[in-house]
Amino acid sequence: MSDRPTFDLLAEDPSGARRGRLHLLRGTVETPAFMPVGTQATVKAVTPEELVGLGAEIILSNTYHLYLRPGHELIRELGGLHRFMHWDRPILTDSGGFQVFSLAGLRTIDEGGVTFQSHLDGSRHRLTPEGVVAIQEALGSDVMMVLDECPAHPSPRDYLERSLALTNRWALRSLAARSRPDLALFAILQGGAELDLRRRAAQELGAHPFDGFAVGGLSVGEGQEVMLETLSATTPHMPREKPRYLMGVGTPLDIVEAVGLGVDLFDCVLPTRTARNGMLFTSQGPVAIKHARFGRDPRPLDEACDCYTCRNFSRAYLRHLYKSREILASRLNTLHNLHFYLGLMRRIRTAVESGTYAGFLRDFRAAAASWGEGGHRMD
Amino acid sequence: MSDRPTFDLLAEDPSGARRGRLHLLRGTVETPAFMPVGTQATVKAVTPEELVGLGAEIILSNTYHLYLRPGHELIRELGGLHRFMHWDRPILTDSGGFQVFSLAGLRTIDEGGVTFQSHLDGSRHRLTPEGVVAIQEALGSDVMMVLDECPAHPSPRDYLERSLALTNRWALRSLAARSRPDLALFAILQGGAELDLRRRAAQELGAHPFDGFAVGGLSVGEGQEVMLETLSATTPHMPREKPRYLMGVGTPLDIVEAVGLGVDLFDCVLPTRTARNGMLFTSQGPVAIKHARFGRDPRPLDEACDCYTCRNFSRAYLRHLYKSREILASRLNTLHNLHFYLGLMRRIRTAVESGTYAGFLRDFRAAAASWGEGGHRMD
Repeated sequence: MSDRPTFDLLAEDPSGARRGRLHLLRGTVETPAFMPVGTQATVKAVTPEELVGLGAEIILSNTYHLYLRPGHELIRELGGLHRFMHWDRPILTDSGGFQVFSLAGLRTIDEGGVTFQSHLDGSRHRLTPEGVVAIQEALGSDVMMVLDECPAHPSPRDYLERSLALTNRWALRSLAARSRPDLALFAILQGGAELDLRRRAAQELGAHPFDGFAVGGLSVGEGQEVMLETLSATTPHMPREKPRYLMGVGTPLDIVEAVGLGVDLFDCVLPTRTARNGMLFTSQGPVAIKHARFGRDPRPLDEACDCYTCRNFSRAYLRHLYKSREILASRLNTLHNLHFYLGLMRRIRTAVESGTYAGFLRDFRAAAASWGEGGHRMD
Repeated sequence: MSDRPTFDLLAEDPSGARRGRLHLLRGTVETPAFMPVGTQATVKAVTPEELVGLGAEIILSNTYHLYLRPGHELIRELGGLHRFMHWDRPILTDSGGFQVFSLAGLRTIDEGGVTFQSHLDGSRHRLTPEGVVAIQEALGSDVMMVLDECPAHPSPRDYLERSLALTNRWALRSLAARSRPDLALFAILQGGAELDLRRRAAQELGAHPFDGFAVGGLSVGEGQEVMLETLSATTPHMPREKPRYLMGVGTPLDIVEAVGLGVDLFDCVLPTRTARNGMLFTSQGPVAIKHARFGRDPRPLDEACDCYTCRNFSRAYLRHLYKSREILASRLNTLHNLHFYLGLMRRIRTAVESGTYAGFLRDFRAAAASWGEGGHRMD
């Protein structure tokens, strides 16, 4: 607990990887950290107690979704998002920018904000930078994100340039609108794949007293190579003493690479969504549990794993549950995949602490290459 | 644990209710007992550890479904059903008769058995009384059920009479086919709503050394009055020293009434299925959590309940999860409803032990009447 959010940079590995500690209103987060995604005030298929058991120190929820349903005023009345969902550790809320700008054709943007139609019922709504901060303060988010415009990839240079300028103006309005200094506010750096725009975003926003900085607008179809190139042109210009968050990323290899470029925080639906689709991360690479070869296999999913699923159930049973569309399939698979991701973050932190991250990264790349492109081929 | 299944009749209440203890290969079951239904080798939405925490001492699984998928030979290879699903307490398996006879148009019956098409892929299969015992022995069921014909309601008298004779011949063939005396085998009494046929079933089958007797073919649309009338014409003719199982029943009131008629065991999908549909049993009657009046309600679902759901979440949150179609809705609702059912059984056992069941039944009827017909009106 602390009155104001702070970040301790504990160690920097020669590779560029960082080991840190983020102090937020509801608790401390050891970084590099992965935030399981709980879009609708629940990390799909798991309880808060299970998340604690898995070692999650912070989760992500979504302003856009909670604003529409059940509504931030309702959540405020009920004591805030933590109490509503029975999770007492930190929560970061995405601003809704990404979701609103995904509603192509259903939204119009102007200097003041964005007007859009709900994906739920078509009702019209308007979000402004100030309004989005107010919503997140109503929710009681430990980390609030500014409203930004997230351009599609690819977008023309002149569009990206104008969009970035707007996003940066919105970020400063958000900072001015904040009324609760105990809740962190992170800016979001945009600029598409234009490296000079990314640098400009980092420099312009980095001059202001945000509590952290996110790299947005990546992992939107540009491919891993462009993503890492963009990231490596951005992080050197970001404030060293503030946490860095790469939004919506990614595969295990994406995360390992991005840590090497100095990123501290990650979120992604990948481990939870793929779990529900029967795609499981293992020490031997990712697998699709539906495959017939698992049908009579009495072994645990990952013989090197000590999660609840691997301690108690066979591949044959997991395949049976998945084929039978049982809810327990989603539960057991989600527990396993989150255990994999959160365990990976622990291994990453240990490697950074011991100054051996370059070797860790090299070994991980080699292993991922043996699994296939992107480290999540589902063979 | 015991080498052979046994049943201790501990107490009989003046009302007719019985308090007993059923000793099975994998453990002891205090009766009257409710068996949560785990059709496909999982009680939907909950883990085995959660079932233990709820106080479940026995669950039901389904021969028909497991025979088709993943197959009983596969389960045998993997060490039996208990190991497959990570549940080490007793399991009763329904024989599949009810499921096969629900496949109207997809099955033909003869003296030897029944031929049917799979509801999964249309493949042709044949089940015989002997084969069904062999399947359940492969599964390692603590309580096996005989293959029976379960006639639709209503059926003509002459059909019911011929069907009953066949079911009884099959029951004796099942008894002869059993090779594992450590696994209990229960007969199933049929006869539709013909009271003399029910009596005949009880008397004919009661003369043979089954480990227990089930009343089948009820709760198939005949209504509660006919069900209880049929039951009250049957149980007095069933062996006093053997456990009595009313298959597929029912609402809380159905169970409370049937205990008063001398029934010891129950199973029903009602608490788990209605949970997934947002219908929740409470001390104040059943409720549909989707209703708008719960939208801003900070109270626990049932203020008199100490289940995990009621200890940690509000009505507003449960409604939000349900409206958002979140998996956690099914989980929390299932935990609550099973807690309600298993708690009801504990209260029933206490009332029978103390010889006060008549009063308990009277009070429960009055409460249920105030909730509406059948005790499960979802207002």
